[in-house]
Amino acid sequence: MGNIFGRWPGKNERIPSIATGSHIDAIPLSGMYDGTVGVIGALHAIKYLKEKRYEPMKSIDVIMFTSEEPTRFKIGCIGSRVMSGNIDEIKLNKLRDDENKSFIEAAREVGYGEKEIINHSKLNKNKYSHFIELHIEQGIELEKEKLNIGIVTSIAAPSTLKVIIEGNGGHAGSVLMHERNDALVAGSELVIEVEKIVKEEGTGDTVGTTGKITVEPNAVNSIPRRVILEIDVRDVDVNRLEIIIDRIINKIKEIKRKRKLEIEYQIVNMDIPMKSDEEIIGTIENVTNELGLKSKKMISRAYHDTLFMSNITKCGMIFIPCKDGISHKPEEYASPDDINNGIIVLANTLMILANESNDYDLNVKNEL
Amino acid sequence: MGNIFGRWPGKNERIPSIATGSHIDAIPLSGMYDGTVGVIGALHAIKYLKEKRYEPMKSIDVIMFTSEEPTRFKIGCIGSRVMSGNIDEIKLNKLRDDENKSFIEAAREVGYGEKEIINHSKLNKNKYSHFIELHIEQGIELEKEKLNIGIVTSIAAPSTLKVIIEGNGGHAGSVLMHERNDALVAGSELVIEVEKIVKEEGTGDTVGTTGKITVEPNAVNSIPRRVILEIDVRDVDVNRLEIIIDRIINKIKEIKRKRKLEIEYQIVNMDIPMKSDEEIIGTIENVTNELGLKSKKMISRAYHDTLFMSNITKCGMIFIPCKDGISHKPEEYASPDDINNGIIVLANTLMILANESNDYDLNVKNEL
Repeated sequence: MGNIFGRWPGKNERIPSIATGSHIDAIPLSGMYDGTVGVIGALHAIKYLKEKRYEPMKSIDVIMFTSEEPTRFKIGCIGSRVMSGNIDEIKLNKLRDDENKSFIEAAREVGYGEKEIINHSKLNKNKYSHFIELHIEQGIELEKEKLNIGIVTSIAAPSTLKVIIEGNGGHAGSVLMHERNDALVAGSELVIEVEKIVKEEGTGDTVGTTGKITVEPNAVNSIPRRVILEIDVRDVDVNRLEIIIDRIINKIKEIKRKRKLEIEYQIVNMDIPMKSDEEIIGTIENVTNELGLKSKKMISRAYHDTLFMSNITKCGMIFIPCKDGISHKPEEYASPDDINNGIIVLANTLMILANESNDYDLNVKNEL
Repeated sequence: MGNIFGRWPGKNERIPSIATGSHIDAIPLSGMYDGTVGVIGALHAIKYLKEKRYEPMKSIDVIMFTSEEPTRFKIGCIGSRVMSGNIDEIKLNKLRDDENKSFIEAAREVGYGEKEIINHSKLNKNKYSHFIELHIEQGIELEKEKLNIGIVTSIAAPSTLKVIIEGNGGHAGSVLMHERNDALVAGSELVIEVEKIVKEEGTGDTVGTTGKITVEPNAVNSIPRRVILEIDVRDVDVNRLEIIIDRIINKIKEIKRKRKLEIEYQIVNMDIPMKSDEEIIGTIENVTNELGLKSKKMISRAYHDTLFMSNITKCGMIFIPCKDGISHKPEEYASPDDINNGIIVLANTLMILANESNDYDLNVKNEL
């Protein structure tokens, strides 16, 4: 669910710890920085602080979350969702991969017991005082504005819609055009409408994508009889997100009527956008200023484990530039200098937060 | 390439034989009548004639063609194409399956030598005087008009277009709408246009289908960066077919300009429509009338091995009804009565043609 694979014990283990980390799983044909920079970077930040002979008051945990990408089990951030109580055992059991294997079966196969998967993963709300994630931007803003660091103020709410279209199919040569209800032509209309609706209703930051399509039987001489579309829409404003989803659903109903086929849809997830903690934002800002780095506050339209960790603790994210804004592709790249800047900002932020006193217990406070 | 798996020797083996048969390969999630009826039916037709103690003058061959469906090697009728000289060894070597295995490698793996694949498969033009194929209609005309037999007068020319669209892809959350060149939205526009162009330019018999689509990376949180479409267009009129293909290609160029992405296309095949032999049409018509069966002449919009066999011999096809016109689906069905009618029409047609004298050599003719 997320392996806490490193704890650097603080001087006071009775107070809430702080945590940092990210994920290392990737979509097919992906790059090697998305997530990974935040896991390897966390280890380097701790190494850096140890070399400076710093001793934290709070313990610092490094977390590597499992299944952040929604590739195998259809929803993303499974690790951070379970750790933060966003999904429970019942929901987890319903998640299936393309071979109909459940998440729990898959976890068991690689050596996890039932208890470890759920009970040992869910975190108490007072376990961590803060969680910070270092990540590549996956956009072009920092690079374009020649900035070193992005300070994330909010994460856009991602909503996923699964649409299953069923027509009669048939032989591509024999069934006349007027007798058809081709599931792919219907699906194609929806793909175009998703783009149109998002552009009409959204601000410049709103995004909508049909990223996945499955067609049966998917043979050149057969009319598609079953098409499954997976649509991802994101906005920092929940109301606007709902308006967009409603318009997509209305379009689904219209296509169903017009093309005389069966269409089912389900909202796979509709998460609430996350706001970063003001204290963490301020700390990162001070750190970048002191280090002489150029930064700006920005929103993340990409989905991160931080979104779910914010259910149980104060959160913040540090972005570094990535070349040409390219992500989820083999060409994904972040320069060693930018990664190094991110690690040093993370290290200094962890150092300040690990000595921050607001949530110390009284006895400890007196010791200071 | 097509195994001649049965020869019923005629009284005169020096004259051209006649042949009948079809294929038994199928697309994924297919039915069990398409093709199979014409192979099993051919064997039953011969059994029927033997039971009647009929002795043919010409030999009768039963052919089971390989790879009629274009599922694995992208083009259909590989067996009949090779047998009729439509594709040679060089072209055959270029055919690859999804694992990049060539047709020849695959054939070798199941025990065929190089010589058997090409040299032993290609037929001389004077080997057969006639070829007849029994097949399910894969449409609803016969059933709707309560007819027993369809006499095929022509086969619509199938043309296949492969379109490869490449955009920049990227993370579905991070890349803003105006920065995108989504390959699936572009592909969807083309899918809709294919339907529109075919409806506008075609007669009621013209059909156009985007049956296959491949998307990369095909993940819900990634903008599609590569989409491959396979489009099938059929018409009995080559000129009209060419007009439709031209309009599709113009649309491809327009989408490429408008959406600023790379689009390549290739015409995978563009075959000439086939006309059935008038003598065979007349023979089938007489046979159905004598048997008291209701028949009509019709065109086949589906692609059959007969299309290629017509390059080397006179051809004809016998259609039987199939339930609700459904084909290429598990629900595909032809009733035992309809199959039986088809077999008896085939048997009687073979009997007449096997004694037909036009192409006997003179010595034999004198013996009659």
